[in-house]
Amino acid sequence: MHTCFHAELREGISELPADEATHVVRVLRLREGDEVRLVDGVGGVAVGTLLQVDKRRASVEVGQVDRETERPQGLIMVVAPTKHTDRFEWLLEKATELGVEAVIPVWCERSERKVEKHDRWEKVIVAATKQCQRRWKPLLHAAIPLDQLLLRHEHLTNRLGAVAHCIEDAPMVPPREPWVSWQQGKHAAWVAIGPEGDFSPREVGWMVEAFAATPVHLGALRLRTETAGMAAIAQFESR
Amino acid sequence: MHTCFHAELREGISELPADEATHVVRVLRLREGDEVRLVDGVGGVAVGTLLQVDKRRASVEVGQVDRETERPQGLIMVVAPTKHTDRFEWLLEKATELGVEAVIPVWCERSERKVEKHDRWEKVIVAATKQCQRRWKPLLHAAIPLDQLLLRHEHLTNRLGAVAHCIEDAPMVPPREPWVSWQQGKHAAWVAIGPEGDFSPREVGWMVEAFAATPVHLGALRLRTETAGMAAIAQFESR
Repeated sequence: MHTCFHAELREGISELPADEATHVVRVLRLREGDEVRLVDGVGGVAVGTLLQVDKRRASVEVGQVDRETERPQGLIMVVAPTKHTDRFEWLLEKATELGVEAVIPVWCERSERKVEKHDRWEKVIVAATKQCQRRWKPLLHAAIPLDQLLLRHEHLTNRLGAVAHCIEDAPMVPPREPWVSWQQGKHAAWVAIGPEGDFSPREVGWMVEAFAATPVHLGALRLRTETAGMAAIAQFESR
Repeated sequence: MHTCFHAELREGISELPADEATHVVRVLRLREGDEVRLVDGVGGVAVGTLLQVDKRRASVEVGQVDRETERPQGLIMVVAPTKHTDRFEWLLEKATELGVEAVIPVWCERSERKVEKHDRWEKVIVAATKQCQRRWKPLLHAAIPLDQLLLRHEHLTNRLGAVAHCIEDAPMVPPREPWVSWQQGKHAAWVAIGPEGDFSPREVGWMVEAFAATPVHLGALRLRTETAGMAAIAQFESR
């Protein structure tokens, strides 16, 4: 059964969002009486029956909405968007499929390009949420400078966090633990992944100090930002 | 230090391959006397000093070659190339960064497009090998129909293998184990990842019978082919 995203999910009759209607009608060629799976990305799932269908619109009769009220905790990824937006969009797609709880984009000292494409990124996340049949859409927060992380996301201090970096001998910073070991047994955590040029030693030191974050590494090979993010999520055991 | 790929790596003076020379000279603007790291992708690593540099050529004096003679065993990925080649190329890049030992592309019953781009795929692997500073380039085998896998790759029967699929109730096939559990404690293994429409029940049954492969799943969410491949490698513990 095809999955549609329907932010205003309620039992009864409603219109599908325009892009979903177009897809259902033009690409999938569904007709009146066909059933679709509906998710709202915030815990609601229902089955709907198409009622009226024309070229660009479709109304749907929504059955009982099965609703989870609390977002399951997992891994929050604090990540520097890559210079090339396509690599960051890949990461958002994969992070969604692999079950990330939330994404907080941060601009770092060594971020080479600071362009936030929030709406586009959100679209990538919605498409992946449908594709992998997640009930909860990952939360995509607004991009912020890294040094505002504590101010804007104090909630991160309520769970354990790790900062992945490749600095061989960071002054004043404890040695790195392997991420695969550190994450064991944790069902809620956060991880910070730096930009192409890595976090600066100052940034790592600040996260260790301000959040009591643990410095970690992701293995012997030098991973790109988007690979590091995906690997960290794939390896997080509550996935 | 920048890494160059140099298939003919020997101590003494030699020419860098044309594309490496162009990159070193035009993009990095290295000059005579500058040092580069050289890898041949088959176990050899050396430091070289640029001798003569002009617009399209560069000769290099190669120091002592540090050579590993045996390819370390790890995970071999048997995988159906995706319909869109960019997704498959992305998987090859990520698989290389995450340490895959070898890749065997296979055409399956439900493969939608069977176009092998061996040279292009090989280039992606070489670029990623350099980027992540691997000593051994993953082996990229020729694409074959899945039903020739035993004939062409009998060596797979020398190690344990798993077949990832999403079929809810495959007739005559044992129930699926979680990949993360199955792979524990294994330092050499192989895993088969199907095309967009999954392996057919017949294909899964054949791999179970012919190779004693274990059916596995990669979690509750429905992963795209390239995400499944990447996650399986990231989760393999000898990475």
